[in-house]
Amino acid sequence: MMTPMSFVDDALAGCRVIVEFPEGGVADWIVAGEVLLQEGLRAWALPAGSLTLLPEVLALFGRRARVGVSRVLDADGVRSAVAGGAHFVTSPLAGADLAEAAGALPFLPGGLTPQEIADAARLGRGAAQVVPADIMGSGYSRTLPALLPGVELVATGRLEHYQCDLWLEAGARAVGVQGVLLLSEEHDAQANEPGELRRRCQQFADLKGN
Amino acid sequence: MMTPMSFVDDALAGCRVIVEFPEGGVADWIVAGEVLLQEGLRAWALPAGSLTLLPEVLALFGRRARVGVSRVLDADGVRSAVAGGAHFVTSPLAGADLAEAAGALPFLPGGLTPQEIADAARLGRGAAQVVPADIMGSGYSRTLPALLPGVELVATGRLEHYQCDLWLEAGARAVGVQGVLLLSEEHDAQANEPGELRRRCQQFADLKGN
Amino acid sequence: MMTPMSFVDDALAGCRVIVEFPEGGVADWIVAGEVLLQEGLRAWALPAGSLTLLPEVLALFGRRARVGVSRVLDADGVRSAVAGGAHFVTSPLAGADLAEAAGALPFLPGGLTPQEIADAARLGRGAAQVVPADIMGSGYSRTLPALLPGVELVATGRLEHYQCDLWLEAGARAVGVQGVLLLSEEHDAQANEPGELRRRCQQFADLKGN
Repeated sequence: MMTPMSFVDDALAGCRVIVEFPEGGVADWIVAGEVLLQEGLRAWALPAGSLTLLPEVLALFGRRARVGVSRVLDADGVRSAVAGGAHFVTSPLAGADLAEAAGALPFLPGGLTPQEIADAARLGRGAAQVVPADIMGSGYSRTLPALLPGVELVATGRLEHYQCDLWLEAGARAVGVQGVLLLSEEHDAQANEPGELRRRCQQFADLKGN
Repeated sequence: MMTPMSFVDDALAGCRVIVEFPEGGVADWIVAGEVLLQEGLRAWALPAGSLTLLPEVLALFGRRARVGVSRVLDADGVRSAVAGGAHFVTSPLAGADLAEAAGALPFLPGGLTPQEIADAARLGRGAAQVVPADIMGSGYSRTLPALLPGVELVATGRLEHYQCDLWLEAGARAVGVQGVLLLSEEHDAQANEPGELRRRCQQFADLKGN
Repeated sequence: MMTPMSFVDDALAGCRVIVEFPEGGVADWIVAGEVLLQEGLRAWALPAGSLTLLPEVLALFGRRARVGVSRVLDADGVRSAVAGGAHFVTSPLAGADLAEAAGALPFLPGGLTPQEIADAARLGRGAAQVVPADIMGSGYSRTLPALLPGVELVATGRLEHYQCDLWLEAGARAVGVQGVLLLSEEHDAQANEPGELRRRCQQFADLKGN
């Protein structure tokens, strides 16, 4: 159940799953983007290292998808994302300079421990990204929201469906999925064929939000 | 073996196990409290969200138990605990404003990483809470005390008996136990019957301190 | 593949494995040191608590080995290591005062989360120690270097050979090995016989650097 007008809902236009594109992109990203949209996964993040793709992605998909920039590490990176027209920006770090550089653009700072998440939420208008959420084990999905009940959490990492489900059930506002949908093999980082991508997206259909 | 006059021993009157009541309390908390006392578990923590219970708990048990307030997140929360007559206050966070708000009342700040624990210990007169300790795996009970030999540690989380034992054996001053004793099922958060609670307390009898 | 002139390569003279001596030392440390050198493991760290051994170790091995001091927790500790002639200093913590006390001596600050590693790298001329790296699970060896591509990482902990391999493969500049080589049993902390130490060192031969 979502409270209306939350910072994260607003930034993601109600989506609860952010699909993060791999560093270096996917060769057939236009096909991949169409599959994601058809399956209702409308919030995407391009890693800061693939910022050159942003104008084209926005031109083709910018009206149908929320396209953010993730993995930004410094204020310059935030400014580049703002200048490129990103819909939101995320970082694994929390820094006042990054938040300031974002200006009016929704900025989601990151952290890992309860202290870091509390610090990030103070910068991020009450919202923070837990990253890399997969590293902390699935028990953290239950523990962290209970420790910091006032924070809007977005759990990001190589999260399988069941882990996304645990985080959302425990009150996280959204999840950020790295690798699992778009890549066939974690180590080889090979992109999935459109059919396989569609099949994986359908497994996430119950989580996708409105 | 306990060094006399440690900050934690003082705050907990020599107890080595803090039993944390669940958020929202336990329906038969008077019966639960009597069982805990009979089994020698005399240090309790009420979560900040259940602060309204504090006056009654203190009136009934305040002479026989050490009753603290846990999960406090800000200076206002600390002040409420002080005003309510708590015997000690704990937080998953470390903030100079929280420590200051505690004044003379024993305050145990929290952290998770070695850096955070070192920072917390500086605020907490040499003592810090490791929270959520269960998330870091049992190897951390051995690694952390060796990295920070000068810090009085209190490991807090959903800790089973063997995990409490590992932390205390490795030099932690005390452990904070969430859920495991008072609740029958982690997910359903249903309170244990007095007989079951007593049975579980007896499993912890060897750890309870003096 | 190593980029020449990195801070860590420079500090460790090209070694990729730092062997950390146990707190309290090893009785036959002269024999142990000879075995390490014969097997090509030429970067060592003495924990700050064993600083009294440093002059003798340097007198015997200082021309053939890089001998650092690890587990330093404060600026005084750093100054003692500098005064004792250590070749480098490491800490599980990151503090500007520690970095300043190191002066021209290579200082490797530590952290655990991405935020802490980013903070440490800012102090440590682009390099940081991940400690205790074993606690975060082996997935972290892949995730952390991808999140912070600009940081020279040294992963330190009770790392088995396969874990060292994962970190180095993923781009870590070096690893710090506690216990695994020199000690036969993690709990009993008994030193390995020279033959057993040699056998273990040979397992690490493929990682040792130039």
